Amino acid sequence: MKKLINDAESVVADALAGLAAAHPDLVTVDLDHRVVYRASPKKEGRVAVISGGGSGHEPLHCGFVGPGMLDAACAGEVFTSPVPDQVVAATKAADRGAGVLHVVKNYTGDVMNFEMAAELVAMEDGPEVATVVVADDVAVEDSLYTTGRRGVGTTLVVEKVAGAAAEAGASLGQVQAVAQRVADHGRSMGVALSSCTVPANGRPSFDLPEDEIEIGIGIHGEPGRRRAPMMTAKQVAAELVAPVLAELPDSPDGHGVIAVLDGMGATPLLELYLMYGEVKALLDQAGVVVERSLVGSYVTSLDMAGCALTLVRADEEVLRLWDAPVRTAALTWTEAGK
Amino acid sequence: MKKLINDAESVVADALAGLAAAHPDLVTVDLDHRVVYRASPKKEGRVAVISGGGSGHEPLHCGFVGPGMLDAACAGEVFTSPVPDQVVAATKAADRGAGVLHVVKNYTGDVMNFEMAAELVAMEDGPEVATVVVADDVAVEDSLYTTGRRGVGTTLVVEKVAGAAAEAGASLGQVQAVAQRVADHGRSMGVALSSCTVPANGRPSFDLPEDEIEIGIGIHGEPGRRRAPMMTAKQVAAELVAPVLAELPDSPDGHGVIAVLDGMGATPLLELYLMYGEVKALLDQAGVVVERSLVGSYVTSLDMAGCALTLVRADEEVLRLWDAPVRTAALTWTEAGK
Repeated sequence: MKKLINDAESVVADALAGLAAAHPDLVTVDLDHRVVYRASPKKEGRVAVISGGGSGHEPLHCGFVGPGMLDAACAGEVFTSPVPDQVVAATKAADRGAGVLHVVKNYTGDVMNFEMAAELVAMEDGPEVATVVVADDVAVEDSLYTTGRRGVGTTLVVEKVAGAAAEAGASLGQVQAVAQRVADHGRSMGVALSSCTVPANGRPSFDLPEDEIEIGIGIHGEPGRRRAPMMTAKQVAAELVAPVLAELPDSPDGHGVIAVLDGMGATPLLELYLMYGEVKALLDQAGVVVERSLVGSYVTSLDMAGCALTLVRADEEVLRLWDAPVRTAALTWTEAGK
Repeated sequence: MKKLINDAESVVADALAGLAAAHPDLVTVDLDHRVVYRASPKKEGRVAVISGGGSGHEPLHCGFVGPGMLDAACAGEVFTSPVPDQVVAATKAADRGAGVLHVVKNYTGDVMNFEMAAELVAMEDGPEVATVVVADDVAVEDSLYTTGRRGVGTTLVVEKVAGAAAEAGASLGQVQAVAQRVADHGRSMGVALSSCTVPANGRPSFDLPEDEIEIGIGIHGEPGRRRAPMMTAKQVAAELVAPVLAELPDSPDGHGVIAVLDGMGATPLLELYLMYGEVKALLDQAGVVVERSLVGSYVTSLDMAGCALTLVRADEEVLRLWDAPVRTAALTWTEAGK
């Protein structure tokens, strides 16, 4: 295993320290709890939006802390849910008197630990908590660590839209409602060209022959739908677009989609842009209007090579919130985020 | 070879088409010449800044086309210099009546072809052309494809600063002067954990044993200083910081550095932030003030794993231009770009 790390035990803490060193104007890090906060917290009376999950999916979630997106992010160990104590600490510290939205990916441990944290906060008369669970991966129905669909790329869109709504002064119920609508209207599927290697294991999570790919891969290397011989980008695009479109709900008001093409962590941008061209051509053929697009490595799986397509059926409000200014380590814009 | 491509022959054109599809508000692509232009060109009377080079280093250069940075970028074949015709076309089309700066990385083919293009433009009574050559890689003195130092990470800083100066209305001589100063004050060095694979070759450019790294790697896989056994991130940081600092010029006015930590294309962000933490600690120890930092995969080498450190000794004007707003596919900010 070759990785730019010091020790498998300290990977997460060391990386959080590096994030803090790189972005002192944007974030502060509570290294005891492994929670990343905004350096300049929201003003009082605004809803806070927090998230978290296992590490290894960077920049999700810690790279999305900042004005217009998350108020805090809890970093679990690699591919391991954050514990309730982390979430309790983040919930209390991020609260500005208007309640806290938890954005949770649908993995059994994440859902359980965020639920437990919400209960602990309630028992302590802490801030009001609402939760949105993202379950967008169409590849398989149940999976390792998951009952129902896995939560993947739509999480980024939920966090962006919820963060913008909170910034604009929406109530907790309103923020939750629009976040839930994004979660309900997002579908995703990925493909792996290589395995990932968890630092503490020291060897690839699964074996993938030199001439095969795994279609429908999970972001922890969970099995997908099937193995297939290596194919062209055009064919890979078809393998992703068709199942995602097949399960994509209609827009509440006739709008097209926000399309996110994610690299899995070790995917060169050259290949990612090339793939996006193929995806876009298929969406055009299918008559699906791409309202906004985002191409980059945002929801990743350590050093896995491959990509994932996420489509979210948009509506007027979601597009307006997507376009709102955002300033985080991984996502920054100030005008229409087209 | 597993890559998200259709055909080794069409990789560059296909990726440019994908870039255009992803960012129609930012860029237009001349697929015949393989030149990327701003969708909204500068107003008349402003200096144009263009660059280019072999593909495979994305987002360099095409991802840096947009307001506040490049006016055009010429994409050569993978690891192959753009031909003079491309540069001539880009120079003429980007000109807004105030001359054109060519930003060129110091590789024999690039330097020759940009020179030839400048001569062709002059013979045709085209716009005035000035050139800045970036030669910042301290790893080796001469190399495959290069006489003198190779040009790597400082190129990004030159393009940002020159683009901001041009946007602010500086003359061609002024833009060239500040760009040259950045080039003169930038030093860089990289390390490879894995080789890259050129699509047309179909196999890794060099062999690197499972327990070794190459210190001082070039961005085309050119040999570095030495092979070494795999080491910790802390040790890798020391291997990069010491030689870069040893050859880093003083600041013209006592300022610290702009620090860029680049992933090589297949480097997960988790590792990159972790590495930055180690680099920053060493710079602190050495008493080097980091005025601005940037962590991400900006100057890459296809699917190589590894990282490269670039330090540019800053001065007041360079920092002001670095902080100026920029909006490109790969780099966007609106306030102090700290």
